Amino acid sequence: MNYGIIFKVLGHLLIIIALGMIAPLLISFYNGENDFVPFLVTIILTLVVGYVLSKVKIGKRKIKAKEGLVIVTLGWALASLFGALPIYLSNSVPTFTDAFFETVSGFTTTGATIIDNIEVLPRGILFWRSFTHWVGGMGILVVAVAILPVMGAGGLHVFRAESPGPITDKITPRIKDTAKLLYVTYIIITLAEIILLMLGGMSIYEAAIHTFGTVGTGGFSTRSSSIGAFNSPYIFIVISIFMIMSGTNFSLYYDLYKGKWKEVFKNSELRLYLGIIVTAVVLITINMNFAHYHNIWESFMHSLFQTSSIITTTGYTTANFDTWTPFSKGILYLLMFVGGSAGSTGGSIKVIRILVLFKLILREIQKIFHPRAVVAVKIGNKAIPNDVLNSIASFFFLYMILFGLGTLVISLEGLDLISSSSAVAATLGNIGPGFGAVGATNTYSGFSVFSKWLLSFFMLAGRLELFTVIALFSPKFWKSER
Amino acid sequence: MNYGIIFKVLGHLLIIIALGMIAPLLISFYNGENDFVPFLVTIILTLVVGYVLSKVKIGKRKIKAKEGLVIVTLGWALASLFGALPIYLSNSVPTFTDAFFETVSGFTTTGATIIDNIEVLPRGILFWRSFTHWVGGMGILVVAVAILPVMGAGGLHVFRAESPGPITDKITPRIKDTAKLLYVTYIIITLAEIILLMLGGMSIYEAAIHTFGTVGTGGFSTRSSSIGAFNSPYIFIVISIFMIMSGTNFSLYYDLYKGKWKEVFKNSELRLYLGIIVTAVVLITINMNFAHYHNIWESFMHSLFQTSSIITTTGYTTANFDTWTPFSKGILYLLMFVGGSAGSTGGSIKVIRILVLFKLILREIQKIFHPRAVVAVKIGNKAIPNDVLNSIASFFFLYMILFGLGTLVISLEGLDLISSSSAVAATLGNIGPGFGAVGATNTYSGFSVFSKWLLSFFMLAGRLELFTVIALFSPKFWKSER
Repeated sequence: MNYGIIFKVLGHLLIIIALGMIAPLLISFYNGENDFVPFLVTIILTLVVGYVLSKVKIGKRKIKAKEGLVIVTLGWALASLFGALPIYLSNSVPTFTDAFFETVSGFTTTGATIIDNIEVLPRGILFWRSFTHWVGGMGILVVAVAILPVMGAGGLHVFRAESPGPITDKITPRIKDTAKLLYVTYIIITLAEIILLMLGGMSIYEAAIHTFGTVGTGGFSTRSSSIGAFNSPYIFIVISIFMIMSGTNFSLYYDLYKGKWKEVFKNSELRLYLGIIVTAVVLITINMNFAHYHNIWESFMHSLFQTSSIITTTGYTTANFDTWTPFSKGILYLLMFVGGSAGSTGGSIKVIRILVLFKLILREIQKIFHPRAVVAVKIGNKAIPNDVLNSIASFFFLYMILFGLGTLVISLEGLDLISSSSAVAATLGNIGPGFGAVGATNTYSGFSVFSKWLLSFFMLAGRLELFTVIALFSPKFWKSER
Repeated sequence: MNYGIIFKVLGHLLIIIALGMIAPLLISFYNGENDFVPFLVTIILTLVVGYVLSKVKIGKRKIKAKEGLVIVTLGWALASLFGALPIYLSNSVPTFTDAFFETVSGFTTTGATIIDNIEVLPRGILFWRSFTHWVGGMGILVVAVAILPVMGAGGLHVFRAESPGPITDKITPRIKDTAKLLYVTYIIITLAEIILLMLGGMSIYEAAIHTFGTVGTGGFSTRSSSIGAFNSPYIFIVISIFMIMSGTNFSLYYDLYKGKWKEVFKNSELRLYLGIIVTAVVLITINMNFAHYHNIWESFMHSLFQTSSIITTTGYTTANFDTWTPFSKGILYLLMFVGGSAGSTGGSIKVIRILVLFKLILREIQKIFHPRAVVAVKIGNKAIPNDVLNSIASFFFLYMILFGLGTLVISLEGLDLISSSSAVAATLGNIGPGFGAVGATNTYSGFSVFSKWLLSFFMLAGRLELFTVIALFSPKFWKSER
């Protein structure tokens, strides 16, 4: 393990995080709020630590796969630790655990909150809290890959360890260019949503915050009742559409830009993703129209919003879906295990893995007719190699194991199984709200210190796709190479 | 598809089923109960249909893999249809749907019941209901494989399609001898438990019925409050031990008999199976001792009983575990997805699959250190071939899909998600009781006709390990070969 290069990259990362806090610093200064000092203190501290680490002398400069994992996992943990400082120092939350939980929840784009009364917090803190969504959505370290010369060719390992989905497309031959292109796309979508939300009557401040929550598929809001507080069908629909867009593989936008409409239209992950959304919206609209809402339009609007919010793992709410029928709640619960597309900002298992696993089942049935035939599992025209199949299968099983065992541990809080299981599903899948005690109108404030750290771990493990984090717990990982 | 051989084998199967009804016929005759006539009518009808089918002329005699699947699936469906007749004709249940549900539940060793007041039913009916557990436990068609010359070498396909677990050990070179050996083992264990239960004060009638329910890992009882009605620690412990024994791979008993103690002791599935049981018992004992029970012994006894009952998919109860803590209920819920060992009478996913999936995760982590190394997943000294790995992975995913989508459909009954999801888990895993509305003190009588048929389908699909049944729904299956 080349610790020098790890420290160096982490140092650069901290400097980037410190620079990211300048915007909230200015906002709190502009609003004359007293969270100005905590931001200043944190920025100076983070800069100093970052600068010292960035000056570590390194011999050979290439980052290996193992080091990539350590950089990404430690990078996310460090960003959350330093990012939690202003929230803690400004007394916005009672304990450091709470501040850490909130910041991990931000960077991982989970959106689970421990703040019961959001409206009383200073504007700088709320802006920072939501800005972490925006940074975490595309990847904290993608910035580093894009701009730091120190990463070199080894940046690929960092990019892979951080990027969502089992198969990492390099859009361009150089990983640095790919990272830059992704960020440009991200910024365009962000600006578009901010403008559209402002046209719907939001202030630029609230438009920016809710855009960060949408395009990062995070879910933090400035209101305790989330998007429902705006009570505007226009805003509901705009955010729904941008949530769906943010759960789509970003490389498809580049394809669209290049005029490859046919390829995009034929993309099987996109088709399944949109197919699931349409099916869920139709079923919930019909089910809830009979059971709950006054008219089909209202039923459709909330159904569209909640479906998009949960499948993309955003977690915004316009309705208290905890009061919905078991059938509609059940659909949302299942969507928690689908998640966004690979290469999107959405979390959870991801549509591509579900697609591959479905194809694995179809092949298994085919094998019954032709036991000796060798049939490849294909996505588009590409055959999926066997080790990718195995890797997807073990990802799914590991996800279920963490979900099951995590639920057991959380249930020791005395919560019923729906509350405790959905708390784990909502953190592991980076969604935010679950059902019951962690439902749309509740927060995570009531959990014990231990559970808050465990759920923070689940958020990190989920965002970094399990193996990146889990591998660090293997003793073999830390042995020196042969 | 060679329909001739399918009809012929099914005919022989019906004759065996008819012969199986002679014992309950005699019991009802001996007790002077009026379910005597329904049994007589059913036996005659079944014999006639079976005889006619068995006389079908067939050309080539070899059973192919596809035909094996059809024989097994139709065989179980037919056995349940004819087996339901005495229950229906004796007016023991209100509708034929109920009688079919109860019989499928019997043959698949699920033990889910729609009978609210068991004590009023005639003794012949209760005996038959439990006897189906005993027949279904080892496999309805294993009898046919063991005794029918018509099966020939093709019996292997039938044996495979019916036998539990992904890897079918042939204990002896000839499949016929293997089937016979398994039955001899089964009969010895059965006799041993009947004797031990009689020593505990049960009548031979109740001892036999509860032994069928134990060794078949079924769970039907003569009492509405299940084993709890006997209120005898001796009986609780004896049944616990025999449940655990029945969830063990039966071929291990043959190994023991052959003196291969070391191999049995080193068997990794057995170790994991017992390890899970010990862990669960310890955790629940401690958890429930604080929360619920008066002393550690009582807590241990119920914990041992419920753990063995759920993991082996038996479903007997000594305590209303629905009132347990969420933590203890959570453990039981997880055990519903473990199930017995391969080659046992237990259902659900099976310990061997869980073991293989765990090893797949470990290999995935190893790959991070040595990306280019080819490491085999091994059970004992045997490397698991890649297509078996894929088959296990797709089984697990299909199981979860059926569980998830099944829960949605059942939730349309208006049941909460814990009740509806556990109803699906308990039928798909052949367990019996679930939680909430289908908990230990409730029955399945309240479900709609549609749900009862759907849950019956889940019981069959679960018992026949999904693919055997699911494949029949593929249009390709019915196309003639090239």
